[in-house]
Amino acid sequence: MLHSYETDGAAIYTASFATIRAEADLARFTPEEEVVAVRMIHASGMVELAPHIRFAPGFAVKARAALEAGAPVLCDARMVSEGITRARLPAGNAVICTLQDPAVPELAARIGNTRSAAAVELWRPHLEGAVVAIGNAPTALFHLLNLLKDPAFPRPAAIIGCPVGFIGAAESKAALAADDPAPWCVVDGRLGGSAITVAAVNALASRKE
Amino acid sequence: MLHSYETDGAAIYTASFATIRAEADLARFTPEEEVVAVRMIHASGMVELAPHIRFAPGFAVKARAALEAGAPVLCDARMVSEGITRARLPAGNAVICTLQDPAVPELAARIGNTRSAAAVELWRPHLEGAVVAIGNAPTALFHLLNLLKDPAFPRPAAIIGCPVGFIGAAESKAALAADDPAPWCVVDGRLGGSAITVAAVNALASRKE
Repeated sequence: MLHSYETDGAAIYTASFATIRAEADLARFTPEEEVVAVRMIHASGMVELAPHIRFAPGFAVKARAALEAGAPVLCDARMVSEGITRARLPAGNAVICTLQDPAVPELAARIGNTRSAAAVELWRPHLEGAVVAIGNAPTALFHLLNLLKDPAFPRPAAIIGCPVGFIGAAESKAALAADDPAPWCVVDGRLGGSAITVAAVNALASRKE
Repeated sequence: MLHSYETDGAAIYTASFATIRAEADLARFTPEEEVVAVRMIHASGMVELAPHIRFAPGFAVKARAALEAGAPVLCDARMVSEGITRARLPAGNAVICTLQDPAVPELAARIGNTRSAAAVELWRPHLEGAVVAIGNAPTALFHLLNLLKDPAFPRPAAIIGCPVGFIGAAESKAALAADDPAPWCVVDGRLGGSAITVAAVNALASRKE
């Protein structure tokens, strides 16, 4: 016998978001933050993600405004840049991932860091006013924070900092919140990843759920 | 003051895998399954994923053998196909995602299903002996299972079934395990996603950790 299941994509989204709002504790979020948190939870499959999501004051409003004004999205990994739904972007925004740039391996060797960190060096001409989306590499976030110690370095409009994993991820996100170089969103601790990061961008890109 | 952190990619991997093996309960896995489970946990940032990972008998051995024999990898989403590390693939394997095929929207309307499910229809010429990697859409997995009810439909060598989310994900993975149309790997319940799915493929693709 064939399996019977919901085949209407819009109905699946609606039911998913309703389940999240019924089960997750979202009371501490502003309305602008709540829609971002709901999509991040949706991507993770975990209502237990909610208490780990933190926003700097004004992050959601400023990141959305930057996207609506045409800001590019700078991504640390192809899984992030490929996941962003182009049709949701409000201004035909550029989505940029420099990790596969042929200059990266040599640059990584020269600065004595990972390829993910070296790729951040190549963001410089795009960074002023951009939305940064880091969903994989703690070293990319740490390196960006070190570059931003220089007050002359270009400032992004907002930073989604959600690297995942066991070595450096929690520390890099704590450093982002402590340094506070631009409005930020993090998932505290080990959790994070490209899908959660993409979900935050997709939520900020369009008011349509 | 600049942040100080581990900048050696290989050292980060080694320390991550050591942390996972120290914290996660992996005793029930065979050695061939264990390396797959460790990478899936690594991608999720959660040692709590371990009890949710299930393998059909022989899955890891057969999926690895298929890749070594040159099997293509069929992916339900670009985040999956883009995440697979090409340098780890043992035989220059094709990595195929049909979701952006121009035929998909009309096909979805015709079969009354999601675009993700319609994209699975286009796998047919590649499916015999392939490794399937579903990390996003429960409808893709359900539709594949329904197509495989026909004994004449081509058989994949192995199915990684890890769709994520609140509507249909748990049910689709339970259906895969119950139907058992080919050796499978699932993450039970709501958890899953493209990163976990990519990690399974990357682990099976190379014996190098």
